Amino acid sequence: MKLRDIARVLDGEISGEPELDIKGVAGIEDAREGDITYVADKKSIPLAKKSPASCVLVKDFIPELKITQLAVPDPRYAFAVLLGHFYEAPRPQAGVHDLAFVSDEASLAPEVSVGAFAYISGGASIGVRTVLYPGVFVGEGSSIGEDCLIYPNVVIREGVSVGDRVIVHAGAVIGSDGFGYVMHEKKHFKIPQVGGVTIGDDVEIGACTTIDRATTGSTVIGKGTKIDNHVQIAHNVKIGENSILVSQVGIAGSTNIGSNVMLGGQAGITDHVNIADGTILAARSGVMSDLKRGIYSGAPAVPRREFMRVVSYLYKLPELNERIKELEEKLGSIERRRRK
Amino acid sequence: MKLRDIARVLDGEISGEPELDIKGVAGIEDAREGDITYVADKKSIPLAKKSPASCVLVKDFIPELKITQLAVPDPRYAFAVLLGHFYEAPRPQAGVHDLAFVSDEASLAPEVSVGAFAYISGGASIGVRTVLYPGVFVGEGSSIGEDCLIYPNVVIREGVSVGDRVIVHAGAVIGSDGFGYVMHEKKHFKIPQVGGVTIGDDVEIGACTTIDRATTGSTVIGKGTKIDNHVQIAHNVKIGENSILVSQVGIAGSTNIGSNVMLGGQAGITDHVNIADGTILAARSGVMSDLKRGIYSGAPAVPRREFMRVVSYLYKLPELNERIKELEEKLGSIERRRRK
Amino acid sequence: MKLRDIARVLDGEISGEPELDIKGVAGIEDAREGDITYVADKKSIPLAKKSPASCVLVKDFIPELKITQLAVPDPRYAFAVLLGHFYEAPRPQAGVHDLAFVSDEASLAPEVSVGAFAYISGGASIGVRTVLYPGVFVGEGSSIGEDCLIYPNVVIREGVSVGDRVIVHAGAVIGSDGFGYVMHEKKHFKIPQVGGVTIGDDVEIGACTTIDRATTGSTVIGKGTKIDNHVQIAHNVKIGENSILVSQVGIAGSTNIGSNVMLGGQAGITDHVNIADGTILAARSGVMSDLKRGIYSGAPAVPRREFMRVVSYLYKLPELNERIKELEEKLGSIERRRRK
Repeated sequence: MKLRDIARVLDGEISGEPELDIKGVAGIEDAREGDITYVADKKSIPLAKKSPASCVLVKDFIPELKITQLAVPDPRYAFAVLLGHFYEAPRPQAGVHDLAFVSDEASLAPEVSVGAFAYISGGASIGVRTVLYPGVFVGEGSSIGEDCLIYPNVVIREGVSVGDRVIVHAGAVIGSDGFGYVMHEKKHFKIPQVGGVTIGDDVEIGACTTIDRATTGSTVIGKGTKIDNHVQIAHNVKIGENSILVSQVGIAGSTNIGSNVMLGGQAGITDHVNIADGTILAARSGVMSDLKRGIYSGAPAVPRREFMRVVSYLYKLPELNERIKELEEKLGSIERRRRK
Repeated sequence: MKLRDIARVLDGEISGEPELDIKGVAGIEDAREGDITYVADKKSIPLAKKSPASCVLVKDFIPELKITQLAVPDPRYAFAVLLGHFYEAPRPQAGVHDLAFVSDEASLAPEVSVGAFAYISGGASIGVRTVLYPGVFVGEGSSIGEDCLIYPNVVIREGVSVGDRVIVHAGAVIGSDGFGYVMHEKKHFKIPQVGGVTIGDDVEIGACTTIDRATTGSTVIGKGTKIDNHVQIAHNVKIGENSILVSQVGIAGSTNIGSNVMLGGQAGITDHVNIADGTILAARSGVMSDLKRGIYSGAPAVPRREFMRVVSYLYKLPELNERIKELEEKLGSIERRRRK
Repeated sequence: MKLRDIARVLDGEISGEPELDIKGVAGIEDAREGDITYVADKKSIPLAKKSPASCVLVKDFIPELKITQLAVPDPRYAFAVLLGHFYEAPRPQAGVHDLAFVSDEASLAPEVSVGAFAYISGGASIGVRTVLYPGVFVGEGSSIGEDCLIYPNVVIREGVSVGDRVIVHAGAVIGSDGFGYVMHEKKHFKIPQVGGVTIGDDVEIGACTTIDRATTGSTVIGKGTKIDNHVQIAHNVKIGENSILVSQVGIAGSTNIGSNVMLGGQAGITDHVNIADGTILAARSGVMSDLKRGIYSGAPAVPRREFMRVVSYLYKLPELNERIKELEEKLGSIERRRRK
């Protein structure tokens, strides 16, 4: 692809050679000759100087870079768009594989692809152009929307509703039983989990992530929310729109997470609390109570600024102890003198 | 179902209309007209007032609630029992699916259901009425008891023994190799993991949970113990009866967990330690040594009461620092005066 | 097997009965009569005294032990070697199962075993003697080396390269999309993940562990590195050789982990940082910045010695507060006297 054509697609401005042949798109550490890469911030400029890339996407032209530059409003977004132009993801062909099982009572829209060893139960429905990779299980009465990608060995149990353009990565489990018991005669009596799960449009769910079905009602993931690998979402949790849940986050039962929330990796949130829209939670935070909109860190989580101050003193504890000791000694000697 | 009949089943007392038609059972936030719900504690009374539910299970009649009430000894237990009465879980029919593989040397009891793409190895045995959903793998010589539910894509490797009425959720792995190496000539030499796993009756194992086989001997989960999603149980761990392990807990090799223990979400326990019967560990605790019966929090875990005090001072560290500074200044000025 | 023959294999020295018949190999807590076990350290001597084992592997003869002993340079290594001699892991026979699917455009070396319901895509290649258990998925163009063991329901997506003698445990996912988005018009726009994953020789990957593909370039696991269950390795991470990652570790995008690194269970490392060769990170540590070679603990991680001191003072915080209060009172009374 000529750089001139790329500039037209991205509505960008070229400084350098418009006839350049662009052979690939790559991050700044992976780019080779012929590639176009991007500089997202000043930190990357030294890397760009050393890069053998032939062209670099920038926000404003960077004089110290000698190679051809393409100025665009958002280099990282432009990079993402170009990756989509250059690399086509492998896409299984439409149709039901001979070795798949589709119940007579399931409903498949046109152009659906069902891989080998996939199992579609009665009453399930699959929307147009959706791809079920090999080994996927879809339970009774579950519906999957249009243009979804369900990767190998995903399990979607009964009574789950999945929107359009949803991506579910390999090994994820949607609709497993919520973890609920009531103590009865010194044993844990299982509370039947008869609710469902509702996944909005444009949601992405990571590999080996689990989303439990509701006890009654529905566990809900709002549209546009993106969930990384190994995340645990318990029964009756409700998550708003366009939130981000990084890997290994755990959310306990009936908790409400707002929209545009960012939960850092390995964070944990207890049951029955409310996290306001726009809240940012640092990695490894632990939340025990409702949070108003803000930026939080630590376990129990406190406002990030407070956390940073506490941590700075935390690592000075031995020094604080020394200062107390010194005060005690001085005061002791003052008192001894007084008594004489 | 008439409320009168429900009252008979639960041995409860009605305040209101016994001829009421109950159409469903739901939690207090999901209940609609025609539903019966429950009030577990005083906190839920305001929710119950606003609920469109037609009847509410209570321990003692609540005068401020205008709707029909059904008093039972344990409303939450009654709720669980009613859910089982009203909703029947989908249950695959008995028989071996045409697309399943069952070794000639495996032994299947009557009324077993083996789903498509399930694989049962030689020497394996499956007890009466047990359901293996599609995609389940059962390794050589493993035995699964009666009335078990093994959800899709579960892997039970060779030499695993599973009791009766055990539920294993989708994507769980039982009998993977323990993580053991010995350094030899600057490389990690794998210690063969030749032991097994023994799962007691009435155990429940969450989605994507992993239970490693023992190096030698057996990793043991005692009867009635309930394990949530994403839990890691290492080789040679032994867990007693009726314990609860919440999501994302990790237990390292050869550790012994007693009976009636409660491990909160994301807690971690090191190898070769003993956790006494009845111990409660708060979410995200980290355990480095043996624990006597008690309630613990924090990492390293300490008795909960101590932890709460420490945390309260932790967030006062900047203030403690200020107080020390003030003392230093005052003492400094006392000393300066004395020297004059 | 006669002890005399075992001694010859291990090049060990017998104290006791060389004609002893050894029937099995077991850890010290599992050993029965007829078994050989091992004593790795002094802590285990009391256990060895009580053990019904017939022989014990030791480094130097232990006079207080009455049973036959076999002295070897490294008893734990000798134990591992003997386990391999005594117990043969079940090994599926070579050949492609009737119920497997292998693309005409895949390439299978001799003696490969492909289990039922395994799926091998076009352009994939599998090396000699490698075993793919039932339910394994191998994506387009991925290559798996020689003598690998790929356990049931593992997913290896397209464009992944796996070396020789690699073991991947059940339910693991290699090559899932990296978690990358760019905010565009208030939505998360997915950055296509078009890179791959490269796994070196002799790597072991735990059950339900996930290794994401690179955005561009490759996520790399160096040879001899061992990864436990439930570990999350994000896109573009690079890990050196012979490192150890214990269960539930999470590593964020583009981070570099050196060789011979040890990451304790549940540790978390942020994105774009460098962990030096030989670094040891305690369980549950949280890393926010580059680490030089050393031993670290805590979150944020600090040198272990510093962490131990801080923790010891942490739990003395209530006492520190008391001491400050006492100082304030004494100083107050000194000042009051002075004013009189």
